[in-house]
Amino acid sequence: MSASSATGARRDRRTRLNPDDRRAQLVSAGVQALADHELDELTIEEFSARTGVSRALFSHYFGSRAGFHRAVLDAAMRSMLAATTPDEQLPARARLRDTLTRTVQFVRAHEGIFFSLVRGPASGDPRTREVVDAARRAQTDRVLDLFAEADIVPSPVLRIAVRSWVAFVEQTLVDAAPASDLAAEGIVDLLVSCLDAITESTQPGAARALAEEERE
Amino acid sequence: MSASSATGARRDRRTRLNPDDRRAQLVSAGVQALADHELDELTIEEFSARTGVSRALFSHYFGSRAGFHRAVLDAAMRSMLAATTPDEQLPARARLRDTLTRTVQFVRAHEGIFFSLVRGPASGDPRTREVVDAARRAQTDRVLDLFAEADIVPSPVLRIAVRSWVAFVEQTLVDAAPASDLAAEGIVDLLVSCLDAITESTQPGAARALAEEERE
Repeated sequence: MSASSATGARRDRRTRLNPDDRRAQLVSAGVQALADHELDELTIEEFSARTGVSRALFSHYFGSRAGFHRAVLDAAMRSMLAATTPDEQLPARARLRDTLTRTVQFVRAHEGIFFSLVRGPASGDPRTREVVDAARRAQTDRVLDLFAEADIVPSPVLRIAVRSWVAFVEQTLVDAAPASDLAAEGIVDLLVSCLDAITESTQPGAARALAEEERE
Repeated sequence: MSASSATGARRDRRTRLNPDDRRAQLVSAGVQALADHELDELTIEEFSARTGVSRALFSHYFGSRAGFHRAVLDAAMRSMLAATTPDEQLPARARLRDTLTRTVQFVRAHEGIFFSLVRGPASGDPRTREVVDAARRAQTDRVLDLFAEADIVPSPVLRIAVRSWVAFVEQTLVDAAPASDLAAEGIVDLLVSCLDAITESTQPGAARALAEEERE
C-alpha cells in the first residue's frame, strides 16, 4: 500500500463515516493495495490495522476474507470498464482506437490491478473468473456494437473471432504494456490491424464497419 | 470414465505390473477420465476402487491427490504437445497449417483434456498454470522457429504479437472447436490470416518467412 493511502487511512480513522461510505473506503483501499500486492496478501488483519476498522466490522461488511476480495475485484473491474468506456461522440474506427489507447494507459497506470484480475492467483478463483469473463464479454460486445451500428450482423465465426481478438488484446497488454519503450500508439496499431485482418478473413463485408469515416 | 477404460482397469487388476508401468497406467486412466470429469472430481478413493490399487500405493506413487493431479496434467499436456508436433518435412506455411489442423483435431477429440488444462478449475492452480504456460511458450517458440529458419530475427514487438496470437488460437479453440458445424479448415484459415496480419503489421520483412513456397 502506498504511503499516501496509509496517511489517508489514518486521517479517516478520525472521521465518522456512514456504513456505506466506510465500506466503499475499505474497498477503495483494497483496490489501491492491488497496485503492489497480490490479492492473496490482502488480509483482513492488515487492513483492520491500517484503517482502524475492527475485524468484527470487516466481517459485518464483507462476511469473510473471500467476500472482501470479491468486493475489491468487482470494484477494480468496474473502474477498468469505466476508464475504457467508448466515447460515443467518435466515429467507429476513431472510437475503437481511442478506447484501446485508454485501455493501454489504464493498464500502464494500474498494472497491479490488471494483473491481479487476469493473471494473478485470484484469476483461478471461480468467482473472480466470473467477474473477469463478464468483462471480457463486455469488451467483445463493445466491438460487436461497431458492426451493429453499421447494420451488419456478425456471423458466428466473426463473433468467435472477435472474442478471440479480446484474448489477443489481453495477452498483448500483459506483455507489452509494462514495456515502457513501446509507444501506446504502436500497440494500438498492432491491435487494430489484427482486428481488421480477422474481420476481412471471416466476413469481408463487415470490414466496412471499421473503415475510416468522416465524423458526422 | 468411459466403459472401456473401466473394463481395462478390471483386466489390469489381474496383471502384475512393475511400479513404473503401474504408475503410468494410473496416470493414463486419469487422463482418460478428464474427458468427462473435472480434474477436481478425480479422487484417489475412486481411482483406487476402479483400478484395484490401494490408497497406500497411490500415496507411494503420487504423494497426494495434488501430486496425482499434477502427474495427470503433465501427461495430458505432453500428449497434446506430441499430437501437435510440427512435421519438419513440410515447408513453413504448410507446416503451420498442418500443425494447426492437428491441433483443432486434438481439441475436438479430447475436449475434456483441453478444457481442464486451459479453462477448468485447475487452470488457477499455480503448478497447472506453470505447465500450461510452458506449453504456451513452446507453441510460441514453434512459430518463432519459422522466422529463424528464414534467417529472420523477430523484433520484440513481433515476439509479443506471436505470443498474443497463441492466446488468440487458444480462445478460438475454446469457442470454435466444439462447434462441429465449423470445418477445421475454416478455423485454420482464420488463425493463419490473423498471424499473417500481425506479422505484416509489426515486421513486414518477416512476412516472407510465412509466404507460400515450393517444397525443396
